Amino acid sequence: MAEAPYAYAGLDRLFHERARLGIVTSLAGHVDGLGFSELKALCGLTDGNLNRHLAVLEEAGLVTLDKGYTGKRPLTRCQLTDAGRLRFAEYLEVLQDVLRKASRVGAVGRGLNEEPA
Amino acid sequence: MAEAPYAYAGLDRLFHERARLGIVTSLAGHVDGLGFSELKALCGLTDGNLNRHLAVLEEAGLVTLDKGYTGKRPLTRCQLTDAGRLRFAEYLEVLQDVLRKASRVGAVGRGLNEEPA
Repeated sequence: MAEAPYAYAGLDRLFHERARLGIVTSLAGHVDGLGFSELKALCGLTDGNLNRHLAVLEEAGLVTLDKGYTGKRPLTRCQLTDAGRLRFAEYLEVLQDVLRKASRVGAVGRGLNEEPA
Repeated sequence: MAEAPYAYAGLDRLFHERARLGIVTSLAGHVDGLGFSELKALCGLTDGNLNRHLAVLEEAGLVTLDKGYTGKRPLTRCQLTDAGRLRFAEYLEVLQDVLRKASRVGAVGRGLNEEPA
């Protein structure tokens, strides 16, 4: 297993799942956090899906969820923790590596009518 | 939903799943295909997992599985189809875009001690 160059073990499933990738990317760009509704709109998720994924991220210590009020309206503010930000940066480095590898072979593969190098 | 910039709808789940990303990247680099055992070693997967993911990819028309023999030993040759190669190239373009977006905010986020821009 140690020698498997395409195992991509560093692709942390917490971030790699498509909806969570959107959530965390959104939060990474907003240092002061985002309200639940803003986040929902940015990610195109339903209430149920967003709640489910946020619970996974909170459980892992990657986001905090502060349930408060703005006037009388309930407002949940979602924020990436420092640990979450650091782990996401690590994930992005692995993703960059994956893409570098895949694009290298993809560039060969895309020239379907050319002779292989 | 149309305006959700972080929905990442183009991140085709067939390719995005971590093990399948490894399988398809391996196959993309080998125009003549790979034997089951070689592929297993490259991806660090068990027989059962590799079989399961290959079945998903074959069902979607992205790979072909030719069950033959080399001498008396059974040999399954796995190969990316032209359709699979094209769809993978499209997936890689979306992934590149995701990474571009995430790295842009990541670069801000990583400077934890700096003032936000």
